[in-house]
Amino acid sequence: MTDALKIGIAGLGTVGASLAKILAERDNMLAIACGRAIRVTAVTARDKTRDRGVDLSNAQWFDNPIEMAKSADIDVFVELMGGAGDPAHAAVEAALTRGLHVVTANKALLAAHGVKLAALAEEKGSILNFEAAVAGGIPVIKALRESLTGNTVSRVYGIMNGTCNYILTRMEKEGLSFADCLKDAQRLGYAEADPTFDIEGNDTAHKLSILTSLAFGTEIAADDIYLEGISNISIEDIRAAADLRYKIKLLGVAQKTDSGIEQRVHPTMVPRDSVIAQVDSVTNAVAIESDVLGELLMVGPGAGGNATASAVMGDIADIAKARPGAQVAPALGRPAKSLAPYTRAGMRSHEGGYFIRLTVEDRAGVFASIATRMAENKISLESIVQRPNQDDPDGPKTIILVTHETMEDAVRKAVASIKGEGYLVGEPQVIRIERP
Amino acid sequence: MTDALKIGIAGLGTVGASLAKILAERDNMLAIACGRAIRVTAVTARDKTRDRGVDLSNAQWFDNPIEMAKSADIDVFVELMGGAGDPAHAAVEAALTRGLHVVTANKALLAAHGVKLAALAEEKGSILNFEAAVAGGIPVIKALRESLTGNTVSRVYGIMNGTCNYILTRMEKEGLSFADCLKDAQRLGYAEADPTFDIEGNDTAHKLSILTSLAFGTEIAADDIYLEGISNISIEDIRAAADLRYKIKLLGVAQKTDSGIEQRVHPTMVPRDSVIAQVDSVTNAVAIESDVLGELLMVGPGAGGNATASAVMGDIADIAKARPGAQVAPALGRPAKSLAPYTRAGMRSHEGGYFIRLTVEDRAGVFASIATRMAENKISLESIVQRPNQDDPDGPKTIILVTHETMEDAVRKAVASIKGEGYLVGEPQVIRIERP
Repeated sequence: MTDALKIGIAGLGTVGASLAKILAERDNMLAIACGRAIRVTAVTARDKTRDRGVDLSNAQWFDNPIEMAKSADIDVFVELMGGAGDPAHAAVEAALTRGLHVVTANKALLAAHGVKLAALAEEKGSILNFEAAVAGGIPVIKALRESLTGNTVSRVYGIMNGTCNYILTRMEKEGLSFADCLKDAQRLGYAEADPTFDIEGNDTAHKLSILTSLAFGTEIAADDIYLEGISNISIEDIRAAADLRYKIKLLGVAQKTDSGIEQRVHPTMVPRDSVIAQVDSVTNAVAIESDVLGELLMVGPGAGGNATASAVMGDIADIAKARPGAQVAPALGRPAKSLAPYTRAGMRSHEGGYFIRLTVEDRAGVFASIATRMAENKISLESIVQRPNQDDPDGPKTIILVTHETMEDAVRKAVASIKGEGYLVGEPQVIRIERP
Repeated sequence: MTDALKIGIAGLGTVGASLAKILAERDNMLAIACGRAIRVTAVTARDKTRDRGVDLSNAQWFDNPIEMAKSADIDVFVELMGGAGDPAHAAVEAALTRGLHVVTANKALLAAHGVKLAALAEEKGSILNFEAAVAGGIPVIKALRESLTGNTVSRVYGIMNGTCNYILTRMEKEGLSFADCLKDAQRLGYAEADPTFDIEGNDTAHKLSILTSLAFGTEIAADDIYLEGISNISIEDIRAAADLRYKIKLLGVAQKTDSGIEQRVHPTMVPRDSVIAQVDSVTNAVAIESDVLGELLMVGPGAGGNATASAVMGDIADIAKARPGAQVAPALGRPAKSLAPYTRAGMRSHEGGYFIRLTVEDRAGVFASIATRMAENKISLESIVQRPNQDDPDGPKTIILVTHETMEDAVRKAVASIKGEGYLVGEPQVIRIERP
């Protein structure tokens, strides 16, 4: 049997503690599967004294993760601290520079520095694995990087934020408001005290940027993502979606178009009887459409200490199974130098169906005016529904339009000119439709 | 750049031809991803003269696949002939004996000889990859063998036969009979002229036996599978399922129980709003439940030349990315010698919910008699519905029972004693319920 694989864990929060525990409890099982033992020989965390439910006294303790990356007696540096900046960035860089393999769950780090780190790993012949960085326990990185080799991907999309999906699911199933559901999510630990990063789509965007690079062979471009969160989704939207046989999900979508690659994160209407529409609560899902394989959808836990630790453990096991010095496949699926620059396709040229909800004053000619504005912009309508105002029969009315495939630019122009007419009450709601 | 990886393809049917074409068209893309070129240097098929839409004149032609395995100038033997016997078996054995890597899509071969072939591969330090053998393009082998390393699996189940799922979907959506849907499936090429192997569940059983071994670390036991096909499913069952908010799918299920491992293939009622219930037509789906990760579900094309070729290509790419002579992880997830013998859990001790449909004569006391027989066997009922006979109000009535969790043995005894009462018209229908 080969020597034990020595790993150092940086960060002993929920994921790190869960990983350390599993590695300790399942040492025998892992040794059989990997052909060698896996040992935690170094650890670092902010608080040395906290009880994490696992005996780490045999591992060398480091106060400084960068110091651990530079000098610990380890083969693999496991980065579970999070954050795009230091110490995570400097520590991973130091570990790779030294020729260590790296496993990380850090989406922010990869979104910001992934290409540079992948290039460094290649130069040093090190493995850089990051299955846990996108959609937690779902093996989507492996699918894109390994299973789909030779495929040309046309679209990748998914539900990649459990907080948002939890809120949208509860709104839909229980008719509660966004604010109430957010409060519950915070109480249950599904949302942070400051939930902005989740609900405004930034977290999904980080994950999407990594998938985009793997799917299309382009450099990671996390800042070039169209972003729209779910805080604007009302219970009226959820109900109208249900009536039209849709559900609303926060999707991250990356799609090849004639003018470049669209990367967008926004609330999306998906057909009610599609598989992805059934993905509820904190569960994640990622779909990949490619020319040889067709459509592959993977559904599973996107977060949580154990699910994330499982993905990290799979990454470590892959390293343990490879002989030291074996050839290393490029971290982003192709050599970092051969990644194409990312060319952004502007949202204005996005083509798709749209749901438009307008609240209008109850006066003659409004319906005709809306229809005219749509026609002027060459938008063809799949359906147009006017709902009675049950609370106040003479009060404002709701009009819901669903368009056929059209250009985002046309929709924006039509909505702007409708706003100019002066009969709108409140802001119009526009939600994109995505079909599997 | 390392030398080109030389592959020999045995079998140039739909999958083989598709693979050869993709490898030829995408040589550059594959070389970038794999760090070396992939070249087809040998081929064999039954008919040398057929036009397969790809130029194979640079590859050496063999009339005999075993001869090709023994003597061709190749690194990888790709077996796409099918069948558990020779020439596939002898050829794969010869290739492994010679130290070649093997990629196969042959579920029948692995179901019959998988453990022996895995042991041979390990002995020779060869890679034996077979992603395409189960659920076509869905990377379930990789998930079980790599991503889930360190997890303890409790259940794996799925829709693994496109023919059956196509038939059941059409029955459900269009209210057609089994026979009509089967005829259409044959016309469209989704079913063989002799469809027995698909519709009676044997194909699913082969695939399940491979998943069971990977999931539970046991020897492959394809003959120890409880088997029930879909030819007995009537439109009445489909309708009754719909009324109760279920759908009927042919599932393969492997599950750890106290008395061993259950392996069963049978028509199954799944909750209508579960994700797997939305998997329609020829699409496949596999779910894996494990203790660290939780539930992972993968949905995708389970058959077809391209989807299968994509999985084969992924397997070849994994070999190309590994340096020649690199350590090889065991084909079945752990060394063949360490696989536990398979201990079958008898179906009589299966626990679950049951749907029971009885057609009974319209006479007094029948309802009470059925309820008594159930109670005698300690079967607690979730629902009991008697339907009017619309065609003939005085004719036989349909009674549908749905049980809470109970033992298969109790259900069999209750149904047998009901049959003994003499008021049944035709055979009772019993369908197991499976919950995600």
